[in-house]
Amino acid sequence: MAIPKDSRITLDAEEMPRKWYNLAADMPDLAPPLNPSTREPVKPEDFKPIFCNAIVEQEGSKKRFIDIPEEVRDNLVFLNRPAPLQRAYHLEKILKTPARIYFKREDMSPLGSHKGNTALAQAYYNAEEGIHTLTTETGAGQWGTALAMVSNLFDIDTTVFMVKGSYNQKPLRKTLMHMYGAKVHASPSTVTEFGRKVLSTNPDTSGSLGIAISEACEVAMKDDNTCYSLGSVLNHVMLHQTVIGQETLEQMRIGEIEPDYMIACVGGGSNFAGFTFPMMYEKMKERSKCEIIAVEPEAAPSLTEGEMRYDYGDTGGMTPLLMMYTLGSEFIPKSIHAGGLRYHGMSPLVSAAYDNGMLTAVSYDQLQTFEAGVMFAKAEGIVPAPESCHAVKAAIDKALECKVTGEEKTIVFCLSGHGLVDLYGYDQYMEGTMQSSSI
Amino acid sequence: MAIPKDSRITLDAEEMPRKWYNLAADMPDLAPPLNPSTREPVKPEDFKPIFCNAIVEQEGSKKRFIDIPEEVRDNLVFLNRPAPLQRAYHLEKILKTPARIYFKREDMSPLGSHKGNTALAQAYYNAEEGIHTLTTETGAGQWGTALAMVSNLFDIDTTVFMVKGSYNQKPLRKTLMHMYGAKVHASPSTVTEFGRKVLSTNPDTSGSLGIAISEACEVAMKDDNTCYSLGSVLNHVMLHQTVIGQETLEQMRIGEIEPDYMIACVGGGSNFAGFTFPMMYEKMKERSKCEIIAVEPEAAPSLTEGEMRYDYGDTGGMTPLLMMYTLGSEFIPKSIHAGGLRYHGMSPLVSAAYDNGMLTAVSYDQLQTFEAGVMFAKAEGIVPAPESCHAVKAAIDKALECKVTGEEKTIVFCLSGHGLVDLYGYDQYMEGTMQSSSI
Repeated sequence: MAIPKDSRITLDAEEMPRKWYNLAADMPDLAPPLNPSTREPVKPEDFKPIFCNAIVEQEGSKKRFIDIPEEVRDNLVFLNRPAPLQRAYHLEKILKTPARIYFKREDMSPLGSHKGNTALAQAYYNAEEGIHTLTTETGAGQWGTALAMVSNLFDIDTTVFMVKGSYNQKPLRKTLMHMYGAKVHASPSTVTEFGRKVLSTNPDTSGSLGIAISEACEVAMKDDNTCYSLGSVLNHVMLHQTVIGQETLEQMRIGEIEPDYMIACVGGGSNFAGFTFPMMYEKMKERSKCEIIAVEPEAAPSLTEGEMRYDYGDTGGMTPLLMMYTLGSEFIPKSIHAGGLRYHGMSPLVSAAYDNGMLTAVSYDQLQTFEAGVMFAKAEGIVPAPESCHAVKAAIDKALECKVTGEEKTIVFCLSGHGLVDLYGYDQYMEGTMQSSSI
Repeated sequence: MAIPKDSRITLDAEEMPRKWYNLAADMPDLAPPLNPSTREPVKPEDFKPIFCNAIVEQEGSKKRFIDIPEEVRDNLVFLNRPAPLQRAYHLEKILKTPARIYFKREDMSPLGSHKGNTALAQAYYNAEEGIHTLTTETGAGQWGTALAMVSNLFDIDTTVFMVKGSYNQKPLRKTLMHMYGAKVHASPSTVTEFGRKVLSTNPDTSGSLGIAISEACEVAMKDDNTCYSLGSVLNHVMLHQTVIGQETLEQMRIGEIEPDYMIACVGGGSNFAGFTFPMMYEKMKERSKCEIIAVEPEAAPSLTEGEMRYDYGDTGGMTPLLMMYTLGSEFIPKSIHAGGLRYHGMSPLVSAAYDNGMLTAVSYDQLQTFEAGVMFAKAEGIVPAPESCHAVKAAIDKALECKVTGEEKTIVFCLSGHGLVDLYGYDQYMEGTMQSSSI
């Protein structure tokens, strides 16, 4: 089949953005995080035991554009940035839709996902301040892998607390982190006081992200040259991911693409924010009427079913209180393959944007998302990550709506990663043994 | 760490080669394949029951440059071509070598390896001639996956005979082929006469590539609209892969890189040929003095331990006799993770070039290659396929030689693919349970 010449828009390395876009600058009413003890707004000092100075400053910054350090920009090349914007021409043909479908290729990173964009910036700032070790938690393993890989480039050691259930179920993710030189502990572990406390009362627990966060923070707090690193939720993480959306805007300008919809999956919010925040700024400037859609799993529907209120970021109630859409910090999502979307809350910035009517949200059962993922893989040759399948599903649904109405709309979605390290889910789907994920 | 601006040389889509280079044009004494019954040179008609006309013509062609059809060229974009040439700057630093190390990134394909380059061309020619089904064999699964994915783009069905041992050990490769819509049979199967015959005498066999080839050919021979497709060894496959080496030459020209060594792994020969044949032409024209090195596993050392003679391409002795370096068609290599290099013979073109002194060859134990692969992954963030680890190991060895001599040599190797679907091998290596693969 002949394919059109505009099927893939690439950028040169020099065309990568030079600044990150900070949505907080355009959210004057953003509610601050609260200290869990005093219920007062957290002060920068409150964050300093776990984050380096530059990160603390970015977390509270209201500056609209923040320079990307040249060394971070240079190293983004190692994540295969700039990433192409590609047309899903074969998918359009299979769907028989008049819509045009484009997707941003975060699958091109050697890590297989977008997670490296913030890992790189965080490792850089910590290295600049002489931090020798970063600690973090990981659920499915993507984030821990990204931080381990990227910290390496800056000669920083990484200690990862991996939720015990995943640690046992996903030995190959652990292998990958070991290859990158990280220490990996099954959480709860015996290396922290908190871990030992949990194990003493519940020795057989399979752990949770909340417990792993507490362990990672405890290690960071006890050593001046060790900091903690988070892969989603917080403002500085959203900020670093905006390279995705800025590249996409530039590619749409080059390709004369005016999107009617921009679509991304949401868990903690980092992929969604990175892809859509720069477009939100365009909308505020009335330079686009694009509808922005967040796609979440029915198993963790914080936007569509949660409520906007102060809640803890972890299960144990040790983090600051964040104003966000939440299902409650005690909520344990069903086990789904899209592990990266299994979070009880939502980034405060994404939550505020949602509250301000800047996006709509939709949720799907995982069976529907895998069906869409298989259709996409067959059409375009790329296996989407289970998380990305959510965006694929919403894009297909919009394209099918166009088929009914006959409208030639333009749909642009973010393929947050590939699924080659997580083929187990597809295996279950193809064998017909996958469970529905509805609450 | 600051990295130099020349760390990654990319090409635009328009800069992709427009012609394949055919080494057969420059090998006047190339011995023809023989008909196994008559021992006479095979005639084009002998191939026609299994291959379409265009492929038969290319297989016997002595034309030096062959046009790449525009539709094939356009679709190479789906394999993320052109692929970058990247400098292994971090690896150089770790090795403390004065050598410069570059690698060609065949890992960027959504398939994770170079195999799509010929799959695409073969699917195109077969589709043009109205073939509705392609059959093939696959061992580890890379080739079957590539053909299944790419055939899809041309609305061709694929039937894959997968060696039963791999079929049972690598269920996720099967999942991937199913997702791309292929029929996958564990070989020996009950769907062919040959398969049933093998099963009747040896019901518990785990199969072999030779048996799978025979089954795939049998199905192709029985239907006029079904053809067979091979992923390595034959001349037309080497031809299609030369996009790799031609892109690399262009990138080296742009980057003013004059290689002292070009290094690639060899099994059947397709990655090696694709990467180095265009450079062999440069050497014939005396435009380069680059040394070309083929790296094979000690478990299947056809170049370093085999002999140049006529031998069968399969174990059952059903294919034409090929003049090649061979360990004997009855030779069963040890089970190694680099399944793509487990072949008793060597491409006749690579064999002829070796016989003419145009390359040198070296072999390694798989433990050595995984050690190199882990070092590379840690340095550059990319996990090499077990096959590619062979090239990585040889590149590291040359770089360490330079450390001793102080010579600032330039080493360029081919990273034939990534290892994210084959992390089991790395898991064994990291856990210390991997076996040596020496004969």
